Amino acid sequence: MDKLKQQISFIVEIDKLKNIFRQSYLTDKSRHENDAEHSWHLAIMAFLLAGHVDEGIDILKVIKMVLMHDLVEIDAGDTYCYDEKAKQDKREREEKCAERIFKMLPEEQCREMYELWEEFERMETAEAKYAAALDRLQPVLLNYFSEGKSWKEHGICIEQVIERNSGIKNCSPKLWKFVEELLHDAVKKGYLKEGY
Amino acid sequence: MDKLKQQISFIVEIDKLKNIFRQSYLTDKSRHENDAEHSWHLAIMAFLLAGHVDEGIDILKVIKMVLMHDLVEIDAGDTYCYDEKAKQDKREREEKCAERIFKMLPEEQCREMYELWEEFERMETAEAKYAAALDRLQPVLLNYFSEGKSWKEHGICIEQVIERNSGIKNCSPKLWKFVEELLHDAVKKGYLKEGY
Repeated sequence: MDKLKQQISFIVEIDKLKNIFRQSYLTDKSRHENDAEHSWHLAIMAFLLAGHVDEGIDILKVIKMVLMHDLVEIDAGDTYCYDEKAKQDKREREEKCAERIFKMLPEEQCREMYELWEEFERMETAEAKYAAALDRLQPVLLNYFSEGKSWKEHGICIEQVIERNSGIKNCSPKLWKFVEELLHDAVKKGYLKEGY
Repeated sequence: MDKLKQQISFIVEIDKLKNIFRQSYLTDKSRHENDAEHSWHLAIMAFLLAGHVDEGIDILKVIKMVLMHDLVEIDAGDTYCYDEKAKQDKREREEKCAERIFKMLPEEQCREMYELWEEFERMETAEAKYAAALDRLQPVLLNYFSEGKSWKEHGICIEQVIERNSGIKNCSPKLWKFVEELLHDAVKKGYLKEGY
């Protein structure tokens, strides 16, 4: 029963992820998306798009990764991917949160969470690369289908988005081709600026 | 590329789940929870609590089920579990939505979605029973930790909650014991009414 109570405390604690808001808007432009919604979206994408990744991947591991990859933002907050200053101490802030919340879990699951998060952050394994590709693709979709609302607010240029997202190419040339076409169309439609 | 475009259209369509609000409040009581957040929460719970279920279960299938089980509410809306009138045509409304949105996917994935949803709804397999147990447990947690905000608003009694949630018992006596204790404590604290 002690283990269960630890797990329940963790489950209640992570309810806070629903109040961590990102820069992306929902496609209907009504409001910013939060981390819990984003993580749910990635998890569904993980199994729907797995056929476009060449390497054999452990899809359950990818889903676990994307479900938990933003939990460290409960204390650290969301760091906007084009905010170079905020990115400097991102890792430190997130480490501190990982330390606090993963330790709420029974030892074995605490270790699993840490390992999943570390693997995701290192972006070396096929699973981590795929998880990262999804984590890049999803906000591109939200941005494009909300007519570039967040890109426009931050004056983002296509080169920045290409640089940020080019990791998708190594993971799936097909997904990357799709993204590239979308981005060029976004410039045409005035959602994204040209140049850098 | 055609398959990918179908999948992307589906992924963009289901963004709408983030605007389907439930009766449960977040634990901080600030607002109602939406279906996407709820589904994310269930998916994390699915792998954290799997050790409390006796039967050997396919955890990937459970996670897929809980991630997609509420997609049919995109058109049908959320039906409050204690609203007997709204429950009468729930299935019909949801069928119609399933028909529309699952068919956006390539044939094989459309079939997989239907089968997962049907399996979830029939609540016969070990996976569906576990998914249903999580779907019951999570709002109980939100209700308890938001000091019964939603229960109080709807004048809910402990017997109603026990009747609604007793399926948890068959799936995991240990989880059920925990829930029962929580519910009796909720009555003591005035979050839930006694009786029926």
